[in-house]
Amino acid sequence: MNLEQIVKNNLPNSQKGRVADYIPALGKVAPKQLGIVVYDLKKNNIEQAGDSRVRFAIESISKVITFLYAVNQLGMEYVTQHVGARQTGFPFNSILNLEIEGDHHPLNPFVNAGAIAVTSLVKATNSMQPFEQIIRFTRDICHDPQITLSTEISESEERTGDMDRSLAYYLKAKGMLKANVPLSLKTYFKQCSMMVTAADLANLGAVLANNGIKPWDNERLISSEAATYTKSLMMTTGLYNESGKYSAIIGVPTKSGVGGGLMTAVPNKYGIGIFSPPLDKSGNSIAGLSALNELSQKLKVDIFRY
Amino acid sequence: MNLEQIVKNNLPNSQKGRVADYIPALGKVAPKQLGIVVYDLKKNNIEQAGDSRVRFAIESISKVITFLYAVNQLGMEYVTQHVGARQTGFPFNSILNLEIEGDHHPLNPFVNAGAIAVTSLVKATNSMQPFEQIIRFTRDICHDPQITLSTEISESEERTGDMDRSLAYYLKAKGMLKANVPLSLKTYFKQCSMMVTAADLANLGAVLANNGIKPWDNERLISSEAATYTKSLMMTTGLYNESGKYSAIIGVPTKSGVGGGLMTAVPNKYGIGIFSPPLDKSGNSIAGLSALNELSQKLKVDIFRY
Amino acid sequence: MNLEQIVKNNLPNSQKGRVADYIPALGKVAPKQLGIVVYDLKKNNIEQAGDSRVRFAIESISKVITFLYAVNQLGMEYVTQHVGARQTGFPFNSILNLEIEGDHHPLNPFVNAGAIAVTSLVKATNSMQPFEQIIRFTRDICHDPQITLSTEISESEERTGDMDRSLAYYLKAKGMLKANVPLSLKTYFKQCSMMVTAADLANLGAVLANNGIKPWDNERLISSEAATYTKSLMMTTGLYNESGKYSAIIGVPTKSGVGGGLMTAVPNKYGIGIFSPPLDKSGNSIAGLSALNELSQKLKVDIFRY
Amino acid sequence: MNLEQIVKNNLPNSQKGRVADYIPALGKVAPKQLGIVVYDLKKNNIEQAGDSRVRFAIESISKVITFLYAVNQLGMEYVTQHVGARQTGFPFNSILNLEIEGDHHPLNPFVNAGAIAVTSLVKATNSMQPFEQIIRFTRDICHDPQITLSTEISESEERTGDMDRSLAYYLKAKGMLKANVPLSLKTYFKQCSMMVTAADLANLGAVLANNGIKPWDNERLISSEAATYTKSLMMTTGLYNESGKYSAIIGVPTKSGVGGGLMTAVPNKYGIGIFSPPLDKSGNSIAGLSALNELSQKLKVDIFRY
Repeated sequence: MNLEQIVKNNLPNSQKGRVADYIPALGKVAPKQLGIVVYDLKKNNIEQAGDSRVRFAIESISKVITFLYAVNQLGMEYVTQHVGARQTGFPFNSILNLEIEGDHHPLNPFVNAGAIAVTSLVKATNSMQPFEQIIRFTRDICHDPQITLSTEISESEERTGDMDRSLAYYLKAKGMLKANVPLSLKTYFKQCSMMVTAADLANLGAVLANNGIKPWDNERLISSEAATYTKSLMMTTGLYNESGKYSAIIGVPTKSGVGGGLMTAVPNKYGIGIFSPPLDKSGNSIAGLSALNELSQKLKVDIFRY
Repeated sequence: MNLEQIVKNNLPNSQKGRVADYIPALGKVAPKQLGIVVYDLKKNNIEQAGDSRVRFAIESISKVITFLYAVNQLGMEYVTQHVGARQTGFPFNSILNLEIEGDHHPLNPFVNAGAIAVTSLVKATNSMQPFEQIIRFTRDICHDPQITLSTEISESEERTGDMDRSLAYYLKAKGMLKANVPLSLKTYFKQCSMMVTAADLANLGAVLANNGIKPWDNERLISSEAATYTKSLMMTTGLYNESGKYSAIIGVPTKSGVGGGLMTAVPNKYGIGIFSPPLDKSGNSIAGLSALNELSQKLKVDIFRY
Repeated sequence: MNLEQIVKNNLPNSQKGRVADYIPALGKVAPKQLGIVVYDLKKNNIEQAGDSRVRFAIESISKVITFLYAVNQLGMEYVTQHVGARQTGFPFNSILNLEIEGDHHPLNPFVNAGAIAVTSLVKATNSMQPFEQIIRFTRDICHDPQITLSTEISESEERTGDMDRSLAYYLKAKGMLKANVPLSLKTYFKQCSMMVTAADLANLGAVLANNGIKPWDNERLISSEAATYTKSLMMTTGLYNESGKYSAIIGVPTKSGVGGGLMTAVPNKYGIGIFSPPLDKSGNSIAGLSALNELSQKLKVDIFRY
Repeated sequence: MNLEQIVKNNLPNSQKGRVADYIPALGKVAPKQLGIVVYDLKKNNIEQAGDSRVRFAIESISKVITFLYAVNQLGMEYVTQHVGARQTGFPFNSILNLEIEGDHHPLNPFVNAGAIAVTSLVKATNSMQPFEQIIRFTRDICHDPQITLSTEISESEERTGDMDRSLAYYLKAKGMLKANVPLSLKTYFKQCSMMVTAADLANLGAVLANNGIKPWDNERLISSEAATYTKSLMMTTGLYNESGKYSAIIGVPTKSGVGGGLMTAVPNKYGIGIFSPPLDKSGNSIAGLSALNELSQKLKVDIFRY
């Protein structure tokens, strides 16, 4: 696999998108970047190219991690009683669908309402607050002890997070969120502000692809059932309201974040991490998706075909 | 694989659902039926159990066939310019999503609005009306020359099809459907009223699983690209508004119909056809889905795991 | 009252709007026209200025007439069991509100769905089809035997009426319309295509203002109760989704039509008819509303003040 | 006018409704109460019957007062640039309409979103916080120096006010509310918790009916324009999503509150205050509305008729 060539082919696409700028800390990221990392489970090795070691905000990809952590802490049954797995064609921060359907829980863990609900489930332990637990788990599943919180970003998220507050209080009002709202949001804004690399995301994808066992040390971190369920969620709702389209075209379970990250898990084969900041209208990395598309074809990994 | 045992285990679940009764012809079907057929691509053989040769109305599973036929006739690019691939959490006959999003085309080919739009694309040829073309293609892809139209059902569909008329005229008013509405609907109601068996659906699933090549004669019927795209659509939106949930739990691309049919394509491995008339609230065969779940686990075919 | 001066002051506003052009027959109307007619109940006389005798399509103002006729034929109780009196902030041809609220009848008689439902209630008699009855009643209540149908316009309405078809079949599918849909729509398109003058509308307004008694011959045509109810509907929902705004500013019960007409009933004082074809975004006559505003202030008739 | 008889006739209707119980302090109010007070502008006297001096929470009727106060402080133009006058068929706490229409300001001052926006406009002065200003103005316009805040109720409102928080943060996120959200909500919850009597509401109605001049001392408190505009808002949107219906039936500008209050202003004739705690499904006093209906007929004050 010539990853350098794929970087070269797709980096120009970054000019077609716009870096997220709803908070200053995201807006000042250099747009012309593309990093790709592929963790090959069979060879148990990593290939990388481009800006694969640049740190960026994990943003919505943290929704995958917190969901997995909540399942570890509380069990699949408990968590799925509090958040659904329903696909939606509405944008990630829509409040409409909740009111229209009169549902008893948020649609799925990857829309903001559902992600906040999941974060609110994580219980403080004697020694650790929820965010501490989440970041430790993130370092473990991403195989990177250097992942830290960007307080600049989390404070910016706090300042501009009114839509998330609106969603959280809506959930609270409807009995879909029992925990303290400001504390839950504080944890949520922090989890979005962890600084990761494309390599970290490839590792995360590799754990999911490997059915919950970390391929670098062969230790199980999450249940096979949780890994399977999560990959399905990534397929049906991982790329915001364009999930169905990209599933049809690219065909690999993927979660995106507005920091420019893409994290893919090809069952039993590859974990893939990609980073390129400029986004399309739906909030997905534009050069990242074109690179992933090329990669999916070269690796022959569309799960609906191979 | 002991299919008889799976029939025995799951037949009682049929009592938990209700046979579709919006038209008399559907309402009088005997509820306590369950048929399962598995086409194994590797062995190139078929196993079956239970009510596998009973004929029933194909209903929404015809949306898969007409989509494939339209792609064959008009090309992938043309068809996907007229209908999207977006997942939706709304019911199949919702008109809301169209108005809210102000989209320029129906969301996907498996909600009624999108299916009617696809049917309207099929062009009459010198010798054949659209429905004639569609039923011939159905006989071919299902490997069953005895598939016929139930005029009793199609006439009932006509009589009760006012919601579909509403959707079709909405599309027409918004410029998303150019053809004659009554003619398009007539074709659509007929395509829903073709009488098939679980074995037919297993054959259809086998062609999709086999990337467009009929496994019984090794002839290509549809492009590999169309087969891949369609399996993805089945995954993200094949089971109405519960698609995401069943994708997470069962993990195989499946399309259902209110006649009680389920058609599954496990890439490169199996085509599966199931028939059991009683439906859950979302319109999916209730014993059919529980049988498919057991089958998916026994065959180890969840595509997010294996 | 110097009506000529009000015409002069407000005619230039017609340049700020656009003539309805969804059908050719409406699009070719000369835009720079303004006619005002005031029927003074106390003096029992009529004043007029500008284009007060030009004929134009009555369009949505016919919804008032058919509602009144249906009440005459079937009684208030029966009609209000089939259509509500709820205000709505959605556009007149929205289908959203129906689906969201799951209501058992259309919101009110002045949105298209409700108007079609009301028209469908009118029963054919031995000697007369519904439209014949409606146009006879229109000639009576408008005191103008020369009102005729423009077949050019009604045929154009038929050709472009797909959104109305969508609404009508939606009502039919939900059991909110029992009659034959194509026949009901045919009557509806015709009632919208009756050709009236501003003077006709002033007469209609005068009957409503006079609590149902025709002031020109002192004969009761409609019940006082129906006149009262209808004036309220005009207030809360007569000017499409801007009804609340104009009620707050102008303060007189008014119904508009996309043909450029405005019909106002000031209880016990005046009937007013205005005609000016260019419309604002919501579909109301733009110079007509500014003229009505000036007139309301000069006549001191805002019902919330005087 | 025999008010005692009207109380007697309508008190039994209180059994058909339910006292608001979303906060304990409201839930424990005795249900079987009905008080009616009529301020006659011509005679400049007050008649009362039943529970006319019982204190209860003003709730949504405070929206009228704060709107008037904001107009006094900031001017009509400024206030109406921040909140519309559009009628809506959605419930008072709906967030849907905002998202669907993509409006730039809340629909009107009487839905919760609009009321919170108006409250947020009131500026602290050197000597007084917004709520202090509002309660002083309330005592003035209700002619009752003994109106006080129930801290029990305002604290309960705080505890259960999550839906209002959701609405407020939605407005904040969309730029429709500039002020501090928690402070604005604190003021809003307090303004809803002022304890008034039916007599207070009759006085408030009398000021509006008298075009802004307090009839008891002939001093102008609000502009005639503000009084007119407000009476129209009460007509088109004062009784939640049933405003259109009650306008058609009763025909007098009225604002309700879930504390059981109704405040009516009959232009130039009467101010009416009614109190009866049990509510109908839409949140309006059930015996209060039936009493108002009888009163409207007896007094002959339907503004669309008389």
